[in-house]
Amino acid sequence: MQLSGRNQLKGKITSVDLGAVMANIKIEVSEPNVITAVITKESAEKLGLAEGDDVTAIIKSTEVIIGK
Amino acid sequence: MQLSGRNQLKGKITSVDLGAVMANIKIEVSEPNVITAVITKESAEKLGLAEGDDVTAIIKSTEVIIGK
Amino acid sequence: MQLSGRNQLKGKITSVDLGAVMANIKIEVSEPNVITAVITKESAEKLGLAEGDDVTAIIKSTEVIIGK
Amino acid sequence: MQLSGRNQLKGKITSVDLGAVMANIKIEVSEPNVITAVITKESAEKLGLAEGDDVTAIIKSTEVIIGK
Amino acid sequence: MQLSGRNQLKGKITSVDLGAVMANIKIEVSEPNVITAVITKESAEKLGLAEGDDVTAIIKSTEVIIGK
Amino acid sequence: MQLSGRNQLKGKITSVDLGAVMANIKIEVSEPNVITAVITKESAEKLGLAEGDDVTAIIKSTEVIIGK
Repeated sequence: MQLSGRNQLKGKITSVDLGAVMANIKIEVSEPNVITAVITKESAEKLGLAEGDDVTAIIKSTEVIIGK
Repeated sequence: MQLSGRNQLKGKITSVDLGAVMANIKIEVSEPNVITAVITKESAEKLGLAEGDDVTAIIKSTEVIIGK
Repeated sequence: MQLSGRNQLKGKITSVDLGAVMANIKIEVSEPNVITAVITKESAEKLGLAEGDDVTAIIKSTEVIIGK
Repeated sequence: MQLSGRNQLKGKITSVDLGAVMANIKIEVSEPNVITAVITKESAEKLGLAEGDDVTAIIKSTEVIIGK
Repeated sequence: MQLSGRNQLKGKITSVDLGAVMANIKIEVSEPNVITAVITKESAEKLGLAEGDDVTAIIKSTEVIIGK
Repeated sequence: MQLSGRNQLKGKITSVDLGAVMANIKIEVSEPNVITAVITKESAEKLGLAEGDDVTAIIKSTEVIIGK
């Protein structure tokens, strides 16, 4: 399946922090960039996300703010 | 000003495509990653965004989807 | 690839309306529900979206507002 | 009040899971589709959301990603 | 209908700028704050949005970034 | 740094409620408007957010829904 989401950054999970409802996932995408993703705990568990996993961070282009 | 948005990727604008209301901006953030941002044409003009500008792509962590 | 986005509604495209930067896509997901998606024109073209295509509408759970 | 949000799916709440700050709400909108919504615990309590409630899941069209 | 979206700012439309797919709407919510909303042209037309209309700007709390 | 996010409401924090992963922050932006922001607990701590702080609530225009 191809996705309309233009931004797809490949990386490796460096930490998974589970709360009651949400989870904070850190993904190292390329030196020196780390992406923080907050997803449901439910999703983190269904995908079995763990440190070291190869994943893709997907971000729709309308969600990006530019600072200059 | 510091921002709560966890993801702040520094890069350089490689193209600016203006529509009537929206604008599509390409930002090279690190080999081989390019971020596409869609912002208002109004913002693109107020910030004077142009090819070659050094900018930061800011993405709130709740906006990231993970694919595995 | 599995996605963390919890909401994945399968449907068929019923119309594609291209603007200069954005595109408005209608997806019939199940009687009587039609999903409207606004994506970049660039994505609509790269995926070759056309009437009759079988697609999936993906929505992160943090993007849903509840009305009661 | 009419809303600009194009996607308004009527359904029934099948579960409410409260965390400290957020709440995960499942809404059956039409066979076989279930919508997961993550809202603040505060909102879930102010609206008194409970299993069996008739609700509407509202999603802005810019929040939809298309997979093909 | 009550909405889970915590932020509901009442105001008056001061301008409507229609593009091919999207529309840029300015809403004066309280001195000196003006809210800019980008919605589909389709929604702007279905709601018949025009200068002087009393409207509410609704923003989900997960969409707010804090700067300090 | 200037931001493309059109909506920047200045205000004062009136409460900070920390969960395991997320935090609920209330910001009084102008009588009678209070903005609720949900950000990561991590961000709330890194910015040292506390009652009484002068902050800015930043909202991208594509995130606003209009009710009429």
